[in-house]
Amino acid sequence: MELRDCLPFWKDLSDADRARLEAAAVLCRAQKGQIIHNGTADCVGLLVLKSGQLRGFSLSEDGRQVTLYRLFSRDVCLMSAYCMLNSLQFDISVQAEQDTEFWRILSPVYKELMGRSAPVANFTTELIASRFSDVMWLLDQILYKHLDSRLAAFLVEESRLTGSDTLALTHDAIAQHLGSAREVITRMLRYFSAEGLVKAGRGSLRLLDEARLEQIAGDSLR
Amino acid sequence: MELRDCLPFWKDLSDADRARLEAAAVLCRAQKGQIIHNGTADCVGLLVLKSGQLRGFSLSEDGRQVTLYRLFSRDVCLMSAYCMLNSLQFDISVQAEQDTEFWRILSPVYKELMGRSAPVANFTTELIASRFSDVMWLLDQILYKHLDSRLAAFLVEESRLTGSDTLALTHDAIAQHLGSAREVITRMLRYFSAEGLVKAGRGSLRLLDEARLEQIAGDSLR
Repeated sequence: MELRDCLPFWKDLSDADRARLEAAAVLCRAQKGQIIHNGTADCVGLLVLKSGQLRGFSLSEDGRQVTLYRLFSRDVCLMSAYCMLNSLQFDISVQAEQDTEFWRILSPVYKELMGRSAPVANFTTELIASRFSDVMWLLDQILYKHLDSRLAAFLVEESRLTGSDTLALTHDAIAQHLGSAREVITRMLRYFSAEGLVKAGRGSLRLLDEARLEQIAGDSLR
Repeated sequence: MELRDCLPFWKDLSDADRARLEAAAVLCRAQKGQIIHNGTADCVGLLVLKSGQLRGFSLSEDGRQVTLYRLFSRDVCLMSAYCMLNSLQFDISVQAEQDTEFWRILSPVYKELMGRSAPVANFTTELIASRFSDVMWLLDQILYKHLDSRLAAFLVEESRLTGSDTLALTHDAIAQHLGSAREVITRMLRYFSAEGLVKAGRGSLRLLDEARLEQIAGDSLR
């Protein structure tokens, strides 16, 4: 996979701009756990993932974190180039969750290109809209649904009831238990799975971290 | 004030595009309280405020709301034209908080223009980044600071202590009481003020809705 395969606007660029972009892109490697971008301490540039996994998270003054979104192969991380946009006034940190290979495109080069190319600018708009949507989903869960704690409580209770950490439950069945929709449960389980709390199998679910599930369940645990 | 005064990319448009945009812009009026855009029920278009005040809010299935941002004269509301962007996957509703006059620009016309004009696309990117920043601020408050409840509790307590609904307190003084920074308190008081909870005067603060302040205070009220 090459840089061009990850940038849908590549076909709209002139040869000169392609060369400019490739010259500004450095292939980097980060080890699992490594912090790649640290709030407003740096503006490292646009990150284009070749392989691996990154997470964007917000960090409170007292060190607490919450994962806002995850990025995989072919995804582009814009928050590490926040200085390109005047209106992006918040800090997000980015960490490698797996050994990760990525191209880093220097912010000034991308910004200059975005300034005069509608396809690049529109790609950037969609990028931000996509991360904004991730955060709105999270906000919605936190504000209204408390589905995370309800789902965690349900899984812990089922595990205690059956005496097993592997639950033979479909997403449909769980949705019925919680008065929710299958798609919503699937999305939340994907989130739990990415957090290392559960592992999904064929029609079954294994709890990997019951202690943290209990913590998330909180008051929802009967 | 004319439409052109609110759109910074006006100077970059051709005469034909200016004419096209003006033809696609309808001047509308909304009364205080009126819902202008209702989640995904409609994609009414880009709203450009001539006068008045709008709020964007999220609405839960059971009817609970939270205000995400506010827009004033010259601001542009993009969320009511969410169908222009594939990656904008969440519902926001928009309500007039004052009698409001706005231009409504039809989504397809704006989308077509954005597709081929870098200045229009970059303006759109900044618009989204700006709303994203508003929501991140709110998320931050909710996740970490609980400053809203701490500030509300402090105001209610002060009012009880002094036996008056008008508090002679500077933002600096409040910040010291809460171990926070003046700018943070000013921003939160602006939020309280816009919510109709308090009214700021010269070096004083009047509580308008003590019942709701108590509710926000919750467990923070000693």
